[in-house]
Amino acid sequence: RTLRIGLIPGDGIGREVIPAGRRILEALPSSLNLNFSFVNLDAGFETFQKTGTALPDKTVETLKKECDGALFGAVSSPSTKVAGYSSPIVALRKKLDLYANVRPVKTTAGSSNGKPIDLVIVRENTEDLYVKEERTVEGPNGKVAEAIKRISERASHRISTIAGEIALRRQGIRDAAPGTSSHSQPMVTITHKSNVLSQTDGLFRETARAALAAEKFSSIHVEEQIVDSMVYKLFRQPEYYDVIVAPNLYGDILSDGAAALVGSLGLVPSANVGDGFAIGEPCHGSAPDIEGKGIANPIATLRSVALMLEFLGEPNAAAKIYTAVDANLDEAKFLSPDMGGNATTQQVLDDVLKRL
Amino acid sequence: RTLRIGLIPGDGIGREVIPAGRRILEALPSSLNLNFSFVNLDAGFETFQKTGTALPDKTVETLKKECDGALFGAVSSPSTKVAGYSSPIVALRKKLDLYANVRPVKTTAGSSNGKPIDLVIVRENTEDLYVKEERTVEGPNGKVAEAIKRISERASHRISTIAGEIALRRQGIRDAAPGTSSHSQPMVTITHKSNVLSQTDGLFRETARAALAAEKFSSIHVEEQIVDSMVYKLFRQPEYYDVIVAPNLYGDILSDGAAALVGSLGLVPSANVGDGFAIGEPCHGSAPDIEGKGIANPIATLRSVALMLEFLGEPNAAAKIYTAVDANLDEAKFLSPDMGGNATTQQVLDDVLKRL
Ligand SMILES: CC(C)[C@H](C(=O)O)[C@@H](O)C(=O)O
Ligand SMILES: CC(C)[C@H](C(=O)O)[C@@H](O)C(=O)O
Repeated sequence: RTLRIGLIPGDGIGREVIPAGRRILEALPSSLNLNFSFVNLDAGFETFQKTGTALPDKTVETLKKECDGALFGAVSSPSTKVAGYSSPIVALRKKLDLYANVRPVKTTAGSSNGKPIDLVIVRENTEDLYVKEERTVEGPNGKVAEAIKRISERASHRISTIAGEIALRRQGIRDAAPGTSSHSQPMVTITHKSNVLSQTDGLFRETARAALAAEKFSSIHVEEQIVDSMVYKLFRQPEYYDVIVAPNLYGDILSDGAAALVGSLGLVPSANVGDGFAIGEPCHGSAPDIEGKGIANPIATLRSVALMLEFLGEPNAAAKIYTAVDANLDEAKFLSPDMGGNATTQQVLDDVLKRL
Repeated sequence: RTLRIGLIPGDGIGREVIPAGRRILEALPSSLNLNFSFVNLDAGFETFQKTGTALPDKTVETLKKECDGALFGAVSSPSTKVAGYSSPIVALRKKLDLYANVRPVKTTAGSSNGKPIDLVIVRENTEDLYVKEERTVEGPNGKVAEAIKRISERASHRISTIAGEIALRRQGIRDAAPGTSSHSQPMVTITHKSNVLSQTDGLFRETARAALAAEKFSSIHVEEQIVDSMVYKLFRQPEYYDVIVAPNLYGDILSDGAAALVGSLGLVPSANVGDGFAIGEPCHGSAPDIEGKGIANPIATLRSVALMLEFLGEPNAAAKIYTAVDANLDEAKFLSPDMGGNATTQQVLDDVLKRL
């Protein structure tokens, strides 16, 4: 099988980590019978400055027509408001209907001095405040701006369904390797703020409850947690959580919070997942402070590559990458500066590659 | 001076901690020349079940006409949607125009085994998604619900101004007691998500920048942080932050996150502040799991009493309470179960009272 992968480095350290992602795909053992071809695509703030658009049509068209999946690096946000600029990753998620943003956060056997964390945040990726429908009016007391938070039954249902499927798949992996996880049962925690937003978040909550009540999910323990308590609990007992499903914005916030728990955003991958398409994307940003120094942590990207492969139906290739990355972290010999080490991007990558 | 204080225990452990708040006011040394009178007021889910409204008009009227301040306990959220029920504290904040929700989070000298945390979250308290303007339509693919997130220049300006004033006041206290804090300069961090919400959060950001650029705030170092990074940073380097100003919902989430850092929500106070009125409110909820057992931690309420007194212009009385509470925590002899101890609410209270 040959997979065609779009490479969208974006800005800043995106350009340093996406090449690492390409390298690990090229280095996968031939026994997997997987081949890759690549196409370089533009997006980001620099693209905006050059062309007037942060997400050229060509990028979207090429992904739609030619590609099986993609890797997205990071984009810089302008530090002041720039007319006409709008985040290309948010647009891409919507244009390709990548309705789920999947963000696993876990400690490795060696790295966790506290309790082991092994959870995944399944974030709705197309609506909520990210519809970006805003308006501003000039009132008697100054400007008043409004934004729409939109929650639909359809999007809430499909995100909850994929959350349930991910919970079952994780349990399958645990059943195949007993003793590797502290979770004994699949669990999904529904996050919302329906005590304030009874209609929008209320709809998310009820729809998630209904989706997860399906016969095929009967082995899943379903709980819910108001978003503010969820942040509190996430920090007090992260080891308790398995799958957390959340509307877009809460998912965004929760995943950065969870990243803090495992030590660095540089470790946390994500995949933007739609039907038959996935974009791997490290959770970190473009990191202007370390840009160009060659010291960005490539782990989040390598794990995002694996996650993309999982959702493209290649779990064995994904497992090879996860295992190699975990071994690098457990040995802790080649760690990038964000992890307290002094290895370069290249050194971390080489160390992972040699373990493939 | 005699202050008349409304007591609104609400539901659950609210009824166990609010009496402790009253006790500490009564026990303040007479040298302060402060007297208190009290009026008991209803609100909460049980009130709703009895009377059909969670916030009786009489409660609002009495607060407006008779009271200088109030203490609010906690309210239970119904576990399923209940027609006509709506959170009384959210309504109260709006009806009394208590536009700032002030939530200090700090470790005491003895309690912090990590770096000392001494920050305050200043949360806008009247708008954002809390305007609760929602509607639901039935579309071809099921229900679609929308909520309005409203951000006004006026509310953003006044919350940023009070954040600046709080930063200066904190610096004044630090200057008067050098060596007690790790902060050398007043700092305000503006939190928003203007990279996605350019109009609403963009307005918050720009207005906060403008408000804090006022001459009187020239000694304040002003920074900003996107809300997801803010959660990440809050967990990675909480000791860095001084005053964090945020729109309503982000402030809600951030304050629970910050509470996790100091070990228990049972320690974190808040004050809902308007012009000339303040309601002290512990950050924790009604805690149905421990209700009626007499083991609720009264510290969050005692600190909320102090915070209310600060905003009613009685900093000396407030300082007495803070010092007594800190001494209780530092000695760590009478701690409630949430803190790993086994003292009852009454025992913790007695221990604090004896240190007044
Ligand atoms: C850059 C920003 C628009 C984006 C988001 O909010 O989704 C980022 O924070 C993320 O989590 O991928
Ligand atoms: C109970 C709830 C409506 C409330 C809020 O969201 O403001 C609570 O979480 C708080 O922080 O006081």
